[in-house]
Formats: sequence, structure tokens, C-alpha cells
Amino acid sequence: MTLAIAESERVRGTTSPNPPVGCVILDEGGDAVGFGGTQPVGGPHAEVMALRAAGSKARGGTAVVTLEPCAHHGRTPPCAETLIEAGIKHVIHATSDPNPKAAGGVEVLRAAGVTVESGLMEQEVSRGPLRAWLHYARTGRPHVTWKYAASLDGRIAARDGTSQWISSETSRKEVHGLRAKLDAIVVGMNTVRLDDPALTARDAGGMPLPHQPLPVVVGTSDLPEGAKLQHTALHLRTHEPDAVLAALAERGVVDVVLEGGPTLAGAFWRAGRIDRVLAYIAPTLLGDGPAAVLDAGVSTITDAVRLTVEDVTMSGPDLRISAVPRT
Amino acid sequence: MTLAIAESERVRGTTSPNPPVGCVILDEGGDAVGFGGTQPVGGPHAEVMALRAAGSKARGGTAVVTLEPCAHHGRTPPCAETLIEAGIKHVIHATSDPNPKAAGGVEVLRAAGVTVESGLMEQEVSRGPLRAWLHYARTGRPHVTWKYAASLDGRIAARDGTSQWISSETSRKEVHGLRAKLDAIVVGMNTVRLDDPALTARDAGGMPLPHQPLPVVVGTSDLPEGAKLQHTALHLRTHEPDAVLAALAERGVVDVVLEGGPTLAGAFWRAGRIDRVLAYIAPTLLGDGPAAVLDAGVSTITDAVRLTVEDVTMSGPDLRISAVPRT
Repeated sequence: MTLAIAESERVRGTTSPNPPVGCVILDEGGDAVGFGGTQPVGGPHAEVMALRAAGSKARGGTAVVTLEPCAHHGRTPPCAETLIEAGIKHVIHATSDPNPKAAGGVEVLRAAGVTVESGLMEQEVSRGPLRAWLHYARTGRPHVTWKYAASLDGRIAARDGTSQWISSETSRKEVHGLRAKLDAIVVGMNTVRLDDPALTARDAGGMPLPHQPLPVVVGTSDLPEGAKLQHTALHLRTHEPDAVLAALAERGVVDVVLEGGPTLAGAFWRAGRIDRVLAYIAPTLLGDGPAAVLDAGVSTITDAVRLTVEDVTMSGPDLRISAVPRT
Repeated sequence: MTLAIAESERVRGTTSPNPPVGCVILDEGGDAVGFGGTQPVGGPHAEVMALRAAGSKARGGTAVVTLEPCAHHGRTPPCAETLIEAGIKHVIHATSDPNPKAAGGVEVLRAAGVTVESGLMEQEVSRGPLRAWLHYARTGRPHVTWKYAASLDGRIAARDGTSQWISSETSRKEVHGLRAKLDAIVVGMNTVRLDDPALTARDAGGMPLPHQPLPVVVGTSDLPEGAKLQHTALHLRTHEPDAVLAALAERGVVDVVLEGGPTLAGAFWRAGRIDRVLAYIAPTLLGDGPAAVLDAGVSTITDAVRLTVEDVTMSGPDLRISAVPRT
């Protein structure tokens, strides 16, 4: 399953609105004979890619796959049937398909005499490469990660507005790597005015990475003349988080990072539309300057937005905190 | 040395202005035969306590001690000579004595034919039980830990001023345990007015722990009538960090925690008088309300106070971050 997860990660960011599934085919003796990841929309799913690579060695073997094989006729034939035709005898998958249209793969497989084991490394997959897609399949909304970098005292810039760079080079590199796995990055008009970002995913040498997320600017006014995003960004003339997410879902966007300023973050919090927080906390103190979020709809301590910390790691000298709203 | 450190920790908070040293005596065969920690001022040092416990078994043995044995005649005879008289043949110590009056123990011991090994688990001791005292011995100033609890977005209270409780029960219990190891807790008059704290160290049942820190209130006005600290606190009528620290050093205070609000924290930062940050970050968002520190003397990003994170651990659902200013 670790290898199937690696396949999932490899294609993450290139498959939306389909899930970035990974699959490994083991032959009858248990040796890995085929690897595959889901191809861009219209292309083959992970199981088909892995079966093609395995060829006739798949007969009598096992398919290890990050998501329950699909059972529906969409742009491609159902994977459950393709696995049966290839002579696969065992299927091990991490997560079940919450999509009622596509689910039912397990039943199809079992009816054909294939043994099916569910739930292996479920958490690694559902918090990892399939997190955004599973959320999208359940809710119909893109998954929103609010990403910000702040000082230990919660400031995103100094008194005079300067902020380059609060977080370390290590963290900034990491963020570019994350961007290359995303469908879209959303910022507000204030961020465009203040920072004039390009929102591209670049490598350490400043060269663009192969996959680029869709840059999205939210705001009712026009983009400033000459802004880097003027001709590249999708401009949504609204401040309403649900309108933003609906427009993105229409374009097949599943995995969104919100990199906007405190006002936009506040609007998404008030709407309950943040699914994960990714905070880069730099070990610095500023003592003044704007905070990471403004007006999250909390006026007294008992109304505080409660989160659960999933993970804390060091990113160079910074802390990287991943947290999700408590349900 | 781990056992000697445990002895150091056991007496921490009860020895100032002397260091909370721990000592273990091993007999000739290497078995631990005596444990000791420094007694309150005027009482015996750790080495003497451990030698007393070991009795004649100390002859030909080893003393493992967290600090270099002292060489000066103070209120008690020099420990180096006491160790020699007891027939100790080997001394292993973690940290050297930066105090020129007391140092020289190693030379005295070696001159008497005792083998001395220095630096074993030096970091555990110098960041642990002897951290504050080593700072005090080097600078003449008490060691200041700035402790605060904030939300992930750096707020210490909600918009309406409510703050009970941002941090978890686990963290609050931990703070009471820390207080019982301290010499003094400093707050400002604003904190007295807003929170009316007692600044006592209490156990889980609300009962006072055996050792209580000195509560200190900083501010030029009188304490409010009826405040919990009115008859228990040392009131220093100044806002100047160095004046506060000098007054505390005069009283034999070595280890101070600053629990005041953002204004007092800002004054200590501007004066460069914070030696360690202990931040309890609760996984909540407030989006409004006061920040942990105001006016740290930073106006632009390049002037940011830079810290190094020493340690991050979970305290229940909260993050506990220990950081020190970068030198």
C-alpha cells in the first residue's frame, strides 16, 4: 500500500475532478509487477495503468489500490470489471468510494469471487493524497486549505507592512512543492495590491514546475493594471465563499489553497468553509502588524473556532502545523 | 547523571540564590550508594548531602554531580575539599561553574589526585534545572521566561476580553507544576485589574503545592482594593525591566516567569530582558482580541526578534513551544 500511496502522490494535482488514485499489481507469488496512477480526465484510471504494466503476470494476482475500484460506466469502463477480466483474485484498498454513482465496486468484485480487503492504511490515504477528493465527493465542494505564514505572536507582517520573508527558505520551497500538487490558489484583491504575487509553483532555481495551479483572485474591483496575475488569473467578482467554491467546482477544481489575507480568511471562517489549516509559524516576534485572520465571527471565548492539531513538524527553523476544525 | 539531574529537579525552586545541584555517589564497584540535592540557603550542598547518605561506602568511589563542585569557603566549606576528605577518587560533572568566586573546583580535585570528567549531559543540565542559575551566575540578572497562552492566531483573549480558558486543562496543570519550581512570577497592574490572579501553585484539587513562588506586581499605581494579590505580592513601583530585575536579584531571586500582559511583555522585549519564551498555543482561532505582545520595538520585518525553537511538544490538545532569542 505504501507503493500505491506513492503512485497516488505522484499524480496528485493532475487528475481533478477525478481522484488521484494509485495502484500496484502483485503477481500470484506476491511480487510487484505493475504500478499505475490515474491519468488526466478522460484517460485511464490507476487500475488500468497498473494492469497494462503488469500484462499477463496479473492473472491470479492481487491489486493494491488507494480507493475502492469504481463500478460505473463513465468516460472509461468500470475498473472492477477490468480487474475481474484481467484475472485478479484479491483486491486490497485503503478507502471506500463515498460517491454513490461510482461505489459498489466491492460488491461487483465479490460477486465474481474476488476476495476484497478494505481499510488498509485508510488514515494515511484519507488524510493524504485523497483528502481533498474525498471531501469533494462527500460535499460537492472543493476542499479548502487555509495556508498562512506568521510570527510566533500571530503577525503576518511588521508594523510597516513588510513581510518578505517571515518564513524560512525551507518553508517557502515546501510551499512551492505543495502548489505543484494543487488545483487552485485563491487570494483576495488586497493581496494582489500589496504583494503582487505570481502564484506559480517554482523549483529552487526559480523555474516553473510541470504542474501549475489555477490562480484565482476574489474581489469586485478590476485587477490593478500591470499586476502579475492580470492575464493569468481567474477573476471571480464576488466575496462570497460559497459563490467562489461553486465557480471553482464547475471548473473541476477539487483541491484549493486559500493564500489570501486576513479579511478573506475571516470570510471563509465565518462561512465554515475552511477544511484544514496549514500554518507556518516562524520563530520570530513582531509585536505589531496585521494578524493572520480578521473577524472569524468570534466575539467571546466560548465561540472560539476549535481545531484539532493533526501534525506538527519543523520546516527548517519554522513550525508547520496542520489542524482541522473540530466536528 | 540522569539520577543526579533528577535530584537537581527535585530541589529546583528551593535553593536560590544557590544553584539546585544534584549529586549521586557511586561506591568503588559502581553502585549508587548516596543521593543528594542542595538544601535551602545556609544548608549543605548536594555533594555533602549525598556523601552523608553514602557514609563510608563513598571511599574510593565516584561523585556524579550536575555542577562543578565549588572551591570557595562561603556559608559552607568548599565541596571539592569535602569530596577529597571522603576519599572520592573520580568526579563526573555536567556543567562548569561560571562564577569566578566559586570556580576552580576541578583544579583542587585534580591536585589531590582525583580524576575529573566534565561535560557529561551538559545540555540536559544547562537547559534544564541549572538554566536559570547559570544565566544568573553569568550576568548577575535573574533568568526571565516569558510565558503566555494564545490562540493559533496569536490572541490572548477574545474581542470582549474573555480568556478563561484559552489553553487546555492539561496545560494549566502543567503551568501550576512549573510555578512550584520558580522563585517569582511577575505581572503588570493591568493583569491584576483584568484577571485578579492569585499566582499560587496549586495541585489538581486546588490545594497549594509545598513551594510557592513570590508574586510580583509591577506598576506605579496602588493595587486595587480587595485584589487577591493585595497582601501577598511584592509591589514594585516601576515599569523599567532592569529596575524590576535588580530589585528581584537583591532578594535572591534567580528564576522568574513573566506572566504579564502584552504591554509588560513588550517592555521586557524592548529591553532585551527575555531569556526564554514558553508559549502554550491552543488550537483555536479568535480572529479578534488582544495580541500576546505589544510594541516589541520592531517596526519593519528585518528588525524582527529572531528566536530558535528548542522544543515543541503537545500538552493535551495544545502546543507547548520553548524558544530562546538568537544570539
